[in-house]
Amino acid sequence: MEKLIEKYQQIRKKIKAYQFAMTLIHWDSATEAPKGCFEERGKNIGVLSEEAYKLSTSTDYIEVVEALYANRELLNDILHHEIIEAQKALDRMRKIPQEEFVAFRVLQASSQETWVKAKHAKDFSLFAPTLEKILAYSRKYVTYVQTDTLQGYDVLLDDFEHGFTMADYDVFFDELKQEIVPLVKKISKKNKPIRDDFAKRHYPVNKQKEFVGYLMDVLCFDRNYGVTKESEHPFTTSTSSKDVRFTVHYYETDFTSAIFSAIHEIGHALYEQQSDPALDDTFSRGGASMAMHESQSRMLENMIGRSYSFWQIHYPKLQEIFLEQLKDVSLDEFYEYINRVLLSYIRVEADELTYPLHIMLRYDIEKQLFDGSLEVKDLEKAWNDLFYTYFGIKVLDASQGVLQDMHWSAGMFGYFPTYALGSSYAAQFFDTMKQEFDVENAISQPTTKIVNQWLKEKIHRYGSTKYPKEIIENANGASFDSRYYIRYLYQKYATLYEVK
Amino acid sequence: MEKLIEKYQQIRKKIKAYQFAMTLIHWDSATEAPKGCFEERGKNIGVLSEEAYKLSTSTDYIEVVEALYANRELLNDILHHEIIEAQKALDRMRKIPQEEFVAFRVLQASSQETWVKAKHAKDFSLFAPTLEKILAYSRKYVTYVQTDTLQGYDVLLDDFEHGFTMADYDVFFDELKQEIVPLVKKISKKNKPIRDDFAKRHYPVNKQKEFVGYLMDVLCFDRNYGVTKESEHPFTTSTSSKDVRFTVHYYETDFTSAIFSAIHEIGHALYEQQSDPALDDTFSRGGASMAMHESQSRMLENMIGRSYSFWQIHYPKLQEIFLEQLKDVSLDEFYEYINRVLLSYIRVEADELTYPLHIMLRYDIEKQLFDGSLEVKDLEKAWNDLFYTYFGIKVLDASQGVLQDMHWSAGMFGYFPTYALGSSYAAQFFDTMKQEFDVENAISQPTTKIVNQWLKEKIHRYGSTKYPKEIIENANGASFDSRYYIRYLYQKYATLYEVK
Repeated sequence: MEKLIEKYQQIRKKIKAYQFAMTLIHWDSATEAPKGCFEERGKNIGVLSEEAYKLSTSTDYIEVVEALYANRELLNDILHHEIIEAQKALDRMRKIPQEEFVAFRVLQASSQETWVKAKHAKDFSLFAPTLEKILAYSRKYVTYVQTDTLQGYDVLLDDFEHGFTMADYDVFFDELKQEIVPLVKKISKKNKPIRDDFAKRHYPVNKQKEFVGYLMDVLCFDRNYGVTKESEHPFTTSTSSKDVRFTVHYYETDFTSAIFSAIHEIGHALYEQQSDPALDDTFSRGGASMAMHESQSRMLENMIGRSYSFWQIHYPKLQEIFLEQLKDVSLDEFYEYINRVLLSYIRVEADELTYPLHIMLRYDIEKQLFDGSLEVKDLEKAWNDLFYTYFGIKVLDASQGVLQDMHWSAGMFGYFPTYALGSSYAAQFFDTMKQEFDVENAISQPTTKIVNQWLKEKIHRYGSTKYPKEIIENANGASFDSRYYIRYLYQKYATLYEVK
Repeated sequence: MEKLIEKYQQIRKKIKAYQFAMTLIHWDSATEAPKGCFEERGKNIGVLSEEAYKLSTSTDYIEVVEALYANRELLNDILHHEIIEAQKALDRMRKIPQEEFVAFRVLQASSQETWVKAKHAKDFSLFAPTLEKILAYSRKYVTYVQTDTLQGYDVLLDDFEHGFTMADYDVFFDELKQEIVPLVKKISKKNKPIRDDFAKRHYPVNKQKEFVGYLMDVLCFDRNYGVTKESEHPFTTSTSSKDVRFTVHYYETDFTSAIFSAIHEIGHALYEQQSDPALDDTFSRGGASMAMHESQSRMLENMIGRSYSFWQIHYPKLQEIFLEQLKDVSLDEFYEYINRVLLSYIRVEADELTYPLHIMLRYDIEKQLFDGSLEVKDLEKAWNDLFYTYFGIKVLDASQGVLQDMHWSAGMFGYFPTYALGSSYAAQFFDTMKQEFDVENAISQPTTKIVNQWLKEKIHRYGSTKYPKEIIENANGASFDSRYYIRYLYQKYATLYEVK
């Protein structure tokens, strides 16, 4: 048994070394590689990916995982969890005919480019034939891997967020539909004037950087174990709890963009930095799931970062840095501006309140695609109709509608719902925190260390050694409940916009 | 044969992918990795190095190299050269008893730390026992790999610079001893006053960066295929001609440090950028040798970068950027300052004229260590005596004397002479250039593209497909001759200091 574990650890160590290299190469590509290097670089990435893939599909690895799985009751908790997941992945891999998997990989290699072209041309028909093939594979994938307890779209939902199926999401989105869709319409109708002239002023990048640096300290991002830099699209990445990195994109004419994307990414980064360092050498470090990670970034960005308490203490610093730009802007005006509700066609540009509606629309459509009631040829119409139902505005063209996201072009069905689920996790954690300590007071301190400590204790330190539902029950003393999120949204925005 | 070549190319592609990853990881470590990540990072580097080492010592690789070597007359010039070098490395590897090689590697792992401690304690006796072991291995190494034509210290010299042995170096250093040692003494005695008050003024880093950016354009560093950043010690690295990187260290109270180290590194970088891109997928891209690389950096730094013609056109820009600091400093004063001769104990701080004397001293000592006339126990005294002979000043302590460099602690005997050889190559190339076109005029242009074009044509494009002596003969139409260097040094400094 000891020998088996040692063998497993040795292969894991190798796989992790490749992951380490790939993560750093990707970081370099996104943040500083010279633009002329990518063709040459592609060759090297190809070799390293192939080596890593070979290792994780080698007979050596498969044999050792299976042997450990057979004796899993003898393993410690961490390894037990890790081996169950590894075995699950192997089982899944075996159920898919290899030639179909390879054909799908080939399709994937060009599908994104086809999607980009269609999006630029604002023409869904250019992408439809490709999407049909992707959907056909995904539907077949579902039939290959489904079990007695997990069928259809649930297979995909569970892939992206273990333990969550339509049974959970239906309740969640129904509540959202009943409570939040009408609220958005009321707010929209009210047309409350919100001051935004100051947002169009010029905010130099170096000053924005200064404020982001200040926020890093406020939120306790540990610079001894982290790096920040600029990139086209903000992201967070890490190779261990000792090396966690995030990026920011600065816009001189949209100064709150960098502020909130930085807070969002620091939410991700803290999860990685506060994961138990003892997990660094395992596959169990870092976030428990997509939605769990998103719960941390969105709690920091929205529940803390867009709260009145937070800006009560930090707005003076912002005003100090942007003396000219903000001298005539009150805290209340700034607070209203950063929480304004604006109907948008584009998911990634949506505000906190309307964001989950964008997800709900995608969930509804994916459900229909996998229960067979919707086909690709009718997809654009279905999208536009639903969008009108939820938002009350008409989609202008496919690039602002059905073609806006890249996910489907990569076959990632079942991924979108985790974005909204993350906010919902966050609201429930936040509610529990409020029962346990004075959160408003904690947010009003020079740093958020009290909140961070709670998150570390209840969530971060476990890395991915537990499933999301376990973490939720453990942290909240109760199972997942989406009503916290609905209530949070309703209370915040009904108050802000003075609607009942 | 085709199949053999293909197999070789495939293994080479893999080795290159590891080299790519290791280069980027090293770059990251030196320029931005958070200081707390190195322990974790070390594990991953260990795995990747081991994989790369396994690959280049695998039976597959050895067999294919040997088969290609046996049929080398059928290979194209580039592969022919590459396979001869690969076979040479394999032969060498085989001649060293593996257990001795491993024991030396183990010794190396701690020898540097021992050296650092001894240097800090300024106590050679703390390092002497370790150095004895290193020397013992190096002497044995020589006996293992020496041939009828290459014996003793020549083995090591040839390792670092193919084709150069004591027969070449003795002539070189004898000339240096006869011509330059007396010149240095004359200059020293003359004690010419050189204005340096302005150098102690404050030069903000961001302004220095602006000027280095200007120099990058003057010297035609191609930003499409390159990156620059800051690090503790300046260096240049690359993964292909399409991705070449160099670093700078800025000191606010020593503004010429960044200027000349940047010019130096750009000299290295241009060699990499101007190497034929067709060589990118081979082991033959980049510099032909240590000294050849150094010839490019030192020509740019000293012969061009410290010339009057260069500053005649670029000093106004420097004055424009440092308006306050340099407004009362004339071009002549600046020129004299950047070419001042100062006797120094430390090699890396030496000026252009006295630098080769530091190398000569090390060459003399290494020669004695390998002909058996000097032992470690007498090394410190030998160093101090020679230093007094060449420089006329007495060494104060071992940290400024025999312990100053790390090279011997890593067993790198035979390396130092390449530093001086590089300058000598550069002087000969520079002389040839002057015969072929108006170099002073080319240096006085807004960019150095005429010079760069010559260097590309005669040196850079060949990468390491030719041996240094071939490149020299090809570029100069004559074999290596160190008198160009001696003459260059003599003329420049005798004129500057008005000594005969």
